[in-house]
Amino acid sequence: MPESILDDISHRRYNPLRGSWVLVSPHRTKRPWQGQQERASKTTLPAYDPSCYLCPGNKRAQGDTNPKYEKTFVFVNDYSAVKEEQAEYNPENKDGSLSSRLLHAESVTGKCYVITFDPSHNLTLADLTTAQIVPIIHTWTMLYTAHLSPKSPLARVASATTLAPHGLADSFATPTAQYRYMQIFENKGAAMGCSNPHPHGQVWTTTSLPEEPFLELEQLQKYRREQGGANLLEDYATLEASKQERIVFENGSFLALCPWWAIWPFEVMIVSKQHKRALVDFDDKGRDDLAEAIAEITRRYDNLFETHFPYSMGLHQAPLDGTKEEIEASHFHVHFYPPLLRGATVRKFLVGYEMLAEPQRDITPEQAAARLRNCGGELYRRKLN
Amino acid sequence: MPESILDDISHRRYNPLRGSWVLVSPHRTKRPWQGQQERASKTTLPAYDPSCYLCPGNKRAQGDTNPKYEKTFVFVNDYSAVKEEQAEYNPENKDGSLSSRLLHAESVTGKCYVITFDPSHNLTLADLTTAQIVPIIHTWTMLYTAHLSPKSPLARVASATTLAPHGLADSFATPTAQYRYMQIFENKGAAMGCSNPHPHGQVWTTTSLPEEPFLELEQLQKYRREQGGANLLEDYATLEASKQERIVFENGSFLALCPWWAIWPFEVMIVSKQHKRALVDFDDKGRDDLAEAIAEITRRYDNLFETHFPYSMGLHQAPLDGTKEEIEASHFHVHFYPPLLRGATVRKFLVGYEMLAEPQRDITPEQAAARLRNCGGELYRRKLN
Ligand SMILES: O=P(O)(O)O[C@H]1O[C@H](CO)[C@@H](O)[C@H](O)[C@H]1O
Ligand SMILES: O=P(O)(O)O[C@H]1O[C@H](CO)[C@@H](O)[C@H](O)[C@H]1O
Repeated sequence: MPESILDDISHRRYNPLRGSWVLVSPHRTKRPWQGQQERASKTTLPAYDPSCYLCPGNKRAQGDTNPKYEKTFVFVNDYSAVKEEQAEYNPENKDGSLSSRLLHAESVTGKCYVITFDPSHNLTLADLTTAQIVPIIHTWTMLYTAHLSPKSPLARVASATTLAPHGLADSFATPTAQYRYMQIFENKGAAMGCSNPHPHGQVWTTTSLPEEPFLELEQLQKYRREQGGANLLEDYATLEASKQERIVFENGSFLALCPWWAIWPFEVMIVSKQHKRALVDFDDKGRDDLAEAIAEITRRYDNLFETHFPYSMGLHQAPLDGTKEEIEASHFHVHFYPPLLRGATVRKFLVGYEMLAEPQRDITPEQAAARLRNCGGELYRRKLN
Repeated sequence: MPESILDDISHRRYNPLRGSWVLVSPHRTKRPWQGQQERASKTTLPAYDPSCYLCPGNKRAQGDTNPKYEKTFVFVNDYSAVKEEQAEYNPENKDGSLSSRLLHAESVTGKCYVITFDPSHNLTLADLTTAQIVPIIHTWTMLYTAHLSPKSPLARVASATTLAPHGLADSFATPTAQYRYMQIFENKGAAMGCSNPHPHGQVWTTTSLPEEPFLELEQLQKYRREQGGANLLEDYATLEASKQERIVFENGSFLALCPWWAIWPFEVMIVSKQHKRALVDFDDKGRDDLAEAIAEITRRYDNLFETHFPYSMGLHQAPLDGTKEEIEASHFHVHFYPPLLRGATVRKFLVGYEMLAEPQRDITPEQAAARLRNCGGELYRRKLN
């Protein structure tokens, strides 16, 4: 295959999902590293930490007490980046003046949640079984459903989805406004700005459609128009399944792969093989398969350098409120952006050139995928015990 | 001024220079920080380090020996991300197949340089006087000139610019090919992936027009077409000079300000007040003023938290080779992207939400500018001695 030359030469790859480029310099891993070392994270945490504001039964910053939850628990972020109520903002001039052209702002309201993934303080997604991850997917789905526009074609599907009581502590009130987008994500590890090791994720819901989902939606809609209704990511999944060059893990519903256009050294995308617009489009089998794919990826990550592998992870799916075209063009997928490059303590810095000019990566996605494929099996920590 | 409400509410600001948005949540700095602490950098380096590959007279990784340079010194990066020669890449199919649509790549060649800023191992830009920074600007200008397309309207200006010998060690050979863009930048501090404290910057020159300058050039050209030949950044400088809300420092040729759309807490842009397309458009006065602006910003940065303030910094200017419209629409400016938020050891993490959805900042650019304005005067380290 003539493309193997890309293992040796500098080249740029195009990301059709966001319409951007990444510079790939495969020979660059040969340079010696004398820079900053990350602290390898400790593995000696207790299962319950009386000072943790996420552990069951503990008090939180603003005085609320967590229930003795058994699976997951949802609450409104005590330090939300956006709020449901705030003073109104009326920009000075909308008149084509210099100010209106160059100093443009708009108000954003919304709601931010925290979701604990498990009552145990010292477990991570990599430690959990597929069956233990399923309740997290249920929680995400219920949260998404609770914020869906009643006008969305997804609302009908959502109410039909049987999400029987799962013993989840779903203490979130109905939102007071219709929001545009829900970003579900997890920051894991101190290297990713995470300040509490208790397994948890976040959900930020806003009146705005944020930059990244906006860029993706533009590209997905463009592809759909130009390719007679086809979906970019569904086509991409088909192509990758046939090539078998960048796939890390596969089950009935999902591919987990290092995308052709990956920026981070071990970046992974979990993408639905069939066209699914959002969480509510999955049935029990789909949710099980998603939980399994997440378990497989997070365990391989930890096995790669035998460490608690830091990453940011997040779901992209249909907006809560949007045009029919936007919702139909959406395709459910999960991005994992992990910073480590060469071991538990050496990360890739996306700095000078990357900030000023273009993201740059040192190993090819094909090399990364091969290494993650070989990291399967039992979690290294369990083997050590 | 009704805009002061933006100190209190969550809002998004639009960046007309790259056509993107940033979420601003001013109330968010109130949350406590329990996460990762950066190591504060040591200040006890020797003026000469025999093991440093950048010090005068020392041996480098690939065996070359540095001259005993007195101001700046330029050499080709021993671990270049792009190279002048490499095997040719001919993509398999250009035929509208799935592969050609979704697995798109192009070859990139180019040349990477390292520039030492000063012979002393233990100085930074913040320690240097304006007069000591001028030779760095000369070196950048000579390097840019040496790579300019002979067809560029800037080539004539460049040859007319009197850059008499300045005692600079300009040991760079003429490039073998015509490149499209030259990115001049500096990564400072271990937190920014910099592996050697000896003051130095980098230059990556490529056949491609990288993502960030491409986005800016698109926006600058669009503005120029829509506003009858006006320049977006020249208009922006005029507007900011009249508002006096985000300016940190000003001299005859430049404004140094926290842009309306800044992402990093203490992000700064140095922007030319008059329309200048590239380094070669400046005369001696302009170069002095640029050196002064860089000295003022880097010293204020260090004074802010009384530390060696980490940042990535880089120049944006006209492409080496481009259409007349691209070159005329270009406007010289310098970006500073520093990560620190609340002190010498607490940085802003652009992680989960920022990677998956949209950049988010905690203090307003107006607040940041006010704090940097108040950090002028002598360098804190000098006062301590
Ligand atoms: O070239 P250096 O200093 O070895 O490396 C540093 O700067 C480069 C350009 O911004 C980045 O790609 C690297 O990740 C960073 O560690
Ligand atoms: O919300 P946290 O966990 O306190 O904060 C972390 O995640 C946020 C969302 O990605 C970021 O804005 C913060 O910079 C980061 O430290």
